[in-house]
Amino acid sequence: MGRKMSGAQAMADQINPKDVVEELIEFTRKDMEAVNEMLLARVGSRVEMVPEIASYLIDAGGKRLRPMLTVAAARLFSPENTHHINYAAAVEFMHTATLLHDDVVDESSKRRGKLAARMVWGNAASVLVGDFLLGQAFMMMVETRDVDALGVLSQAAAIIAEGEVFQLSKANDLSTQVDEYFAVIKAKTAALFEAATEVGAMAGGASEEQRKALKEFGAELGIAFQLVDDVLDYGGASGTIGKNVGDDLREGKMTLPILHALKNADEADCAFIKQHLGDADASAETVAKVVEILHSTNALEEALMRAREHADAAKAHLSAFADLPGCRILIDVADYCVERAY
Amino acid sequence: MGRKMSGAQAMADQINPKDVVEELIEFTRKDMEAVNEMLLARVGSRVEMVPEIASYLIDAGGKRLRPMLTVAAARLFSPENTHHINYAAAVEFMHTATLLHDDVVDESSKRRGKLAARMVWGNAASVLVGDFLLGQAFMMMVETRDVDALGVLSQAAAIIAEGEVFQLSKANDLSTQVDEYFAVIKAKTAALFEAATEVGAMAGGASEEQRKALKEFGAELGIAFQLVDDVLDYGGASGTIGKNVGDDLREGKMTLPILHALKNADEADCAFIKQHLGDADASAETVAKVVEILHSTNALEEALMRAREHADAAKAHLSAFADLPGCRILIDVADYCVERAY
Repeated sequence: MGRKMSGAQAMADQINPKDVVEELIEFTRKDMEAVNEMLLARVGSRVEMVPEIASYLIDAGGKRLRPMLTVAAARLFSPENTHHINYAAAVEFMHTATLLHDDVVDESSKRRGKLAARMVWGNAASVLVGDFLLGQAFMMMVETRDVDALGVLSQAAAIIAEGEVFQLSKANDLSTQVDEYFAVIKAKTAALFEAATEVGAMAGGASEEQRKALKEFGAELGIAFQLVDDVLDYGGASGTIGKNVGDDLREGKMTLPILHALKNADEADCAFIKQHLGDADASAETVAKVVEILHSTNALEEALMRAREHADAAKAHLSAFADLPGCRILIDVADYCVERAY
Repeated sequence: MGRKMSGAQAMADQINPKDVVEELIEFTRKDMEAVNEMLLARVGSRVEMVPEIASYLIDAGGKRLRPMLTVAAARLFSPENTHHINYAAAVEFMHTATLLHDDVVDESSKRRGKLAARMVWGNAASVLVGDFLLGQAFMMMVETRDVDALGVLSQAAAIIAEGEVFQLSKANDLSTQVDEYFAVIKAKTAALFEAATEVGAMAGGASEEQRKALKEFGAELGIAFQLVDDVLDYGGASGTIGKNVGDDLREGKMTLPILHALKNADEADCAFIKQHLGDADASAETVAKVVEILHSTNALEEALMRAREHADAAKAHLSAFADLPGCRILIDVADYCVERAY
């Protein structure tokens, strides 16, 4: 390895990301089978288009990270019923609804390497099936009759949407501040991670203190996760240009790498970024040139350092419970969330 | 009056629609002030675009019929707390969210005589602010900690979205059956009326039997209301061509007047309707010609007869409670829902 290793790189090297995912899958396998059954049952509708579109997103490609976090959080403790299955399924439906609506909002043509649902069935169906899944998510929550968990998840739903509106209002806004970026990702991404682990802990019968720790773990993990996503959108740590790279540039999203570069690049490079931010037709060459600027200003590595800080904060919240069976897996997941950038 | 009066016309003449609305407003005034305060408080957001868009829809023009029904249903009985305020506000937010999403789905340019929100702020913001309002609606429900009412309203949310997808899948589908039309309007419109009156009754402390009666009242009222809306879209009973007339034709909506005309008109007239169904650019002259066909086949009067049947069914569900103070107002509202077509 000729490239100099950053601190984050060195730490992340201690884990093998594939093993972490495998471990998490194994730890949650039995419950996730029940979750998957519930998802399948609840996309059912006499209106054919509903299961068609929902399955298109749910069947394929998704890692199911969020529902696995709910299940894993519950399994740190001792669930006495199947509430965590309902919450995990609800969290996945909420996430899927967000994806369907995001594709319409961002006018995306691709999702997880496939055509976005809106390209196949249209914007209208994507909006409405998203609404349907949100309604089904609430019904699954109601079935547990736990009003506190319902409160956690409905608050998350409102915060996520608010965060998306905030992001939209900041698109192409060159005056966007770093703290505004963090406000956006806390709302649009971390809120669901936070709710996912909190309701998991609640369903598992965690103490108040444990519940709070799992909630904070999820919140920090979600921030790290989105920071890394925003780095991956420019090819990750190595800056490899592959498919779907540069979408955020084309959509004018003011992510941390861009904010960092605009602050640190020379005048010509800044002008280049400004010129192409929000240009839906930016070419692969343009994106490559922006990635080059991001590297020259250390913007991607900087964003990953911040991701590492939040992953570390996530892990710290679990330190008091590190001896609970399964806790090591959640701690490793925090490292994994950063490691996937490399 | 030179025109021959139908049975429905004769019955509806017994009430003055303006008086009914005034009576309902008066009966619910105090509670609706609290509802309005709650609506105003809950559209608040640090993201400016959220209250801007939400207020644009909520402030202006809306009759607030649905939340008034929730309040009126509660006030038939004896609410011991303010749960009915929360439910009424939640119902209004659910309705507003549906309007925001419908305008995107239908690509509408107007709503209540104003530019549709999507024409001012764009589709993306309309989708996301709708999602935000839905999340806020659930939070207001959760605050009452009544899981049963939450179940009623979350089921309604899923059914409404499913009905909208069904309607979308039937757009321009000339093989649409009358029972499919009724399935669409039961889901997309009646489900919220039904939930609105049911949770009102629950919050008022109704007995099981009373709750069921109010639920059925709402369901039948909702069907009547949508049937009349679909007649009003072609100018109402008199077929007066005004603004916003013909939107359903342009969107290819297979409403009962169209289904009736396609079954009863001669070949040339059927061909004319088929030719222009779903033509977004259909001229006022084209719409006028379609309205003429609807009149010649008695399609509008037929739809109003069905509306009258459902309004009567709604009233029948309340007959056992007719001596409850305020019940007469709800019974009059059923007549009003039909009368507004004339």
